[in-house]
Amino acid sequence: MNDTPPLQIAIVGAASCTGDEELTAEEVGRQIAQAGAVLICGGRGGVMEAACRGATGAGGIAVGILPGGMEEANPFCTVTIPTGLGIARNAVVVSAAGAVIAVGGAYGTLSEIAMALKLGCPVFGIQTWKIPGVVACMDAGEAVARAVSTAGRDTGNVPKSGESQ
Amino acid sequence: MNDTPPLQIAIVGAASCTGDEELTAEEVGRQIAQAGAVLICGGRGGVMEAACRGATGAGGIAVGILPGGMEEANPFCTVTIPTGLGIARNAVVVSAAGAVIAVGGAYGTLSEIAMALKLGCPVFGIQTWKIPGVVACMDAGEAVARAVSTAGRDTGNVPKSGESQ
Amino acid sequence: MNDTPPLQIAIVGAASCTGDEELTAEEVGRQIAQAGAVLICGGRGGVMEAACRGATGAGGIAVGILPGGMEEANPFCTVTIPTGLGIARNAVVVSAAGAVIAVGGAYGTLSEIAMALKLGCPVFGIQTWKIPGVVACMDAGEAVARAVSTAGRDTGNVPKSGESQ
Amino acid sequence: MNDTPPLQIAIVGAASCTGDEELTAEEVGRQIAQAGAVLICGGRGGVMEAACRGATGAGGIAVGILPGGMEEANPFCTVTIPTGLGIARNAVVVSAAGAVIAVGGAYGTLSEIAMALKLGCPVFGIQTWKIPGVVACMDAGEAVARAVSTAGRDTGNVPKSGESQ
Repeated sequence: MNDTPPLQIAIVGAASCTGDEELTAEEVGRQIAQAGAVLICGGRGGVMEAACRGATGAGGIAVGILPGGMEEANPFCTVTIPTGLGIARNAVVVSAAGAVIAVGGAYGTLSEIAMALKLGCPVFGIQTWKIPGVVACMDAGEAVARAVSTAGRDTGNVPKSGESQ
Repeated sequence: MNDTPPLQIAIVGAASCTGDEELTAEEVGRQIAQAGAVLICGGRGGVMEAACRGATGAGGIAVGILPGGMEEANPFCTVTIPTGLGIARNAVVVSAAGAVIAVGGAYGTLSEIAMALKLGCPVFGIQTWKIPGVVACMDAGEAVARAVSTAGRDTGNVPKSGESQ
Repeated sequence: MNDTPPLQIAIVGAASCTGDEELTAEEVGRQIAQAGAVLICGGRGGVMEAACRGATGAGGIAVGILPGGMEEANPFCTVTIPTGLGIARNAVVVSAAGAVIAVGGAYGTLSEIAMALKLGCPVFGIQTWKIPGVVACMDAGEAVARAVSTAGRDTGNVPKSGESQ
Repeated sequence: MNDTPPLQIAIVGAASCTGDEELTAEEVGRQIAQAGAVLICGGRGGVMEAACRGATGAGGIAVGILPGGMEEANPFCTVTIPTGLGIARNAVVVSAAGAVIAVGGAYGTLSEIAMALKLGCPVFGIQTWKIPGVVACMDAGEAVARAVSTAGRDTGNVPKSGESQ
């Protein structure tokens, strides 16, 4: 039984990414697991796959929340949630996180950053969209440390049911 | 019976807006109706209410796709879709449109712009987020003319079922 | 401006149906329109298409809330909402209605009946699943009369935002 | 890295349940964990809480897919997905499962049974709705054995992206 709900941190980024972004994402996943938190992501390739590989390689839990079916999942997810919701699954990814770390990314990532900020969920960015409210970080270490610190201090960042949007 | 599906254009913007944004939104709604298109929006106050007032005042149809229940609707919606989906309803708003017009707006609007661009739906902006891919317009007249022209030419901008995201 | 929100009644039933179900659905659509209500449905073929044909043929508004993209719509929808949500769109169909009329149907229809009843929305059935809570009706006339009467008396049947489920 | 995607089995049932249903649900959760599968559920009280307690007590992973926010979660979830989707989250619960076990239940459970069957996902029932297609089982042991056998043999039961509904 949990005295407190599990700390959950999301990584968002593109399914197609650079080698540098992949290295960063894998390190983010590893450090989230080492901090005892659950990794939440979109479950697909690129940044998501690298983060899952890092998290599960370090003995952690990686959750992939997919837009379509199970066949979209990368092979490093501990749990897959094939939602069938299409792009609306982006809302579920950020709703499930106490903090979000954005690595690079394109329009899908931007939508996740925007919805996280709308929900009052803190967003830490590494070489990503420059949007007011996103806390720019130098590297994986800084982003995870700040995300864990913030999400752990305040588990109230997830959407409350019935909150007006 | 429709030979072609009805032309549907969404307006996105904040529930709290300036007087200027309200005037612009009302004009956008009016011109969408005069073009024979259906107005799609989030169904709440501010930019959404002004656009609905403009559309229905000109004899058009205004559809409000709400995050929660019917009580959130502004009084100028012809049709309300109280989805109960929370912020995920933002995905539905843009999925339903052949083109999106953004007026001002905060994080919710940014998420709608990002998801529209992700889905390949053209976005026309009036004094809104400066995101690559958004076509900046001077006023309501320019935005509606370009939206109608684009959406009418290519009704294939809406998401195809099963399209990978 | 609406003094009261528009009365919206959903029809649910299968995309593949019998000729008798089609006649019934068309009559349901026609009478919903004649009652001044908006027809809500899943926007596809069979029962949905027949109801849309009936509603728009009588000068009413027919809204099709689709699981995928616009190409799934039947040609008699006044407004189409291609949600991209997959089967989760069934929840949106019933959330948007003050009352639901079920005609025949298979598992999808059963899920809509169940979610409507869960949300406290009255369900009137014609030759459909025998589930406690569904009010069995003889024909289209009885179902629409009872649905209009119930939904018109109590517009509070739609889900309130934040209501626990 | 997984050679095969993780086996995921959902339990569906009511947040308010009898003592017998609770005992059954806890045994279902325990046996799912002992079979090396991930437990998927709606994350709330009653049947869901008992199943999570059984699964995590046996060292397994319990995933709670919530309609609203994190505060709705029972204290035995390993991972919580506070979707904010309202009743549409029922679709996500069954989409995430290779097989569904229903214990008792009311309208919400019925909607999950119906959507699972619609998606081609096998449903095993213990003292639940008698719907054609639901395989009636005597107890937790029979239901889990059959669910594991079926879901393990055929991981293709989850919805494919783009599948027509």
